[in-house]
Amino acid sequence: MSGVVLPLESKKAAQNGIDPLIELVADDMKKVNSLILSKTGSEVEMIPEVAKHLIDSGGKRLRPMITLASAQMCGYQGDAHVTLAASVEFMHTATLLHDDVVDESDMRRGKLAARMLWGNEASVLVGDFLLGQAFRMMVEVGSLPALDVLSHAATVIAEGEVLQLSTAKNLETTEDEYLEVIRSKTAALFAAAAEVGPIIAGENASRISGLRSYGNNLGLAFQLIDDALDYGGNKGDLGKNIGDDFREGKVTLPVILAYRRGNEEERRFWQDAIVEGKTGDEALQKAIELLAAHGAISDTVSRARHYAEMAKDALGTMPESEHRSALVDVLEFCVSRAV
Amino acid sequence: MSGVVLPLESKKAAQNGIDPLIELVADDMKKVNSLILSKTGSEVEMIPEVAKHLIDSGGKRLRPMITLASAQMCGYQGDAHVTLAASVEFMHTATLLHDDVVDESDMRRGKLAARMLWGNEASVLVGDFLLGQAFRMMVEVGSLPALDVLSHAATVIAEGEVLQLSTAKNLETTEDEYLEVIRSKTAALFAAAAEVGPIIAGENASRISGLRSYGNNLGLAFQLIDDALDYGGNKGDLGKNIGDDFREGKVTLPVILAYRRGNEEERRFWQDAIVEGKTGDEALQKAIELLAAHGAISDTVSRARHYAEMAKDALGTMPESEHRSALVDVLEFCVSRAV
Repeated sequence: MSGVVLPLESKKAAQNGIDPLIELVADDMKKVNSLILSKTGSEVEMIPEVAKHLIDSGGKRLRPMITLASAQMCGYQGDAHVTLAASVEFMHTATLLHDDVVDESDMRRGKLAARMLWGNEASVLVGDFLLGQAFRMMVEVGSLPALDVLSHAATVIAEGEVLQLSTAKNLETTEDEYLEVIRSKTAALFAAAAEVGPIIAGENASRISGLRSYGNNLGLAFQLIDDALDYGGNKGDLGKNIGDDFREGKVTLPVILAYRRGNEEERRFWQDAIVEGKTGDEALQKAIELLAAHGAISDTVSRARHYAEMAKDALGTMPESEHRSALVDVLEFCVSRAV
Repeated sequence: MSGVVLPLESKKAAQNGIDPLIELVADDMKKVNSLILSKTGSEVEMIPEVAKHLIDSGGKRLRPMITLASAQMCGYQGDAHVTLAASVEFMHTATLLHDDVVDESDMRRGKLAARMLWGNEASVLVGDFLLGQAFRMMVEVGSLPALDVLSHAATVIAEGEVLQLSTAKNLETTEDEYLEVIRSKTAALFAAAAEVGPIIAGENASRISGLRSYGNNLGLAFQLIDDALDYGGNKGDLGKNIGDDFREGKVTLPVILAYRRGNEEERRFWQDAIVEGKTGDEALQKAIELLAAHGAISDTVSRARHYAEMAKDALGTMPESEHRSALVDVLEFCVSRAV
């Protein structure tokens, strides 16, 4: 059957969340991928190795796709969006490398984390290299407003990571404080990724702020859903990679809600787990039960849906188009991952 | 029947939104009211007149009640909470006086605005006087951390008002940008009002940030519901004082949503109304129809409910008490005003 196009099937696929976006940016995304490959080249042998390890490990590349789609949607003609998209992905990859060092993570996307293979020092430094390359690519594009947005995002992300240190293992973190962390740590890059498209397309201020707002709220929803999925989501789907946040003592929204809604005994359990590190399989099982008992996962998903609604309305002033629909579909895709 | 306590009635009353809060702080509130009266005294005759006009005009005094309740809840013994509550109400009153000048409002709470009776100059200056008195009262209390919180709120509120100038009559304002305005303009004072209670009671950082977060999110919910009520709320209740925001060209969340969800023709209507000032009764009627057609009021209420949920969870680490229940009831009271 390969090579035969079935219209019905393809229509069904097109209704399936992220697929319309993938289709719309497929050609540009090939260019982004080869650019990424070429820019990880270095005479220092370890750099392409480490970078390749992470880049090959199969993320969805949602952020660069957002940049491509927002530029296309605004009628941008040229190649700068490809360069900026690669730059956005490099910024993201750099933070993953650094995060794993800070969090002392062993695994990343089901594979050994780079730091387990090449060590912490290499992970930190290759992250710096990628960040440097990201800046060089932005500079190549030569748009000062786009440079401003992306370089600002880089500092905000770093601030968010530092802020996160203060919430680590701190069960008294409020939802507001947690939102502040993920607004910097995750949403800032999504916002910048969506904003540079209309900027290089020369769009007006209203569309720039609309797409920025879309990215920001998509980022918040995305992170909250990730948090819910780390405990199996609403389905309680206990596949692999469940409980990473728990074992690392991360205080994410599901934990914040369950902790605040729990009784004294339950709070002692969370203290033992998150602060004292008693996070074995039995503890994880109990954590998942407590999250369910307090509706902490389903309410995390509801909170995410609120931001997804905001993101959808933010796109309201863009003319109707395939791209706009695709970006709206991504919101539903993002939230429904956890339902 | 007066003087006879009916347990059932009183229980019913206790379930009625804001009543439990009113009951709990009734004694302290009397002290706040006499303090307010005494602190508006001045040899400059116009000051007590203008202040009395506004103070008598019957607001709910929700902000000082929050300060009183949060201090009581934390077991505070003393009178500083009364002084701080009065100070919070003075800050609020000062911003109302200044707002009416900036917005060129004719009416305030169904009465002529102070500026219509004594002029803009007097409104600005009496506002400054009240702000000065608010600071003097905070200083009297002598708690530097409380002073820090309240004086910080004063600058944030002013920043929010300035920021609002940039969104005035700007239909391209995103929901994010609008939230930023009301976070400063409204929520900052609610947050400070709730935070100073635990501060003077010597509570730990967790309870201080929990109550701060409660106040912040209550403030957001409160303002969004006010915005919905200005168009009659979900009931479409067209009593008096409907349409003030509309006539003043204010871009509030209901308008933001309807504008973004509308077609070209509808957007032209909003431009004519908000930007060009065509805001007669017929236009108001059409605005209300468009808001309903796009679910803009009901979604504003849903958005408010999201913040009310956050506020409720923020109180989770406070021990169960009458005060905690009363503060939770206020959230429901606040949101259900518009349903």
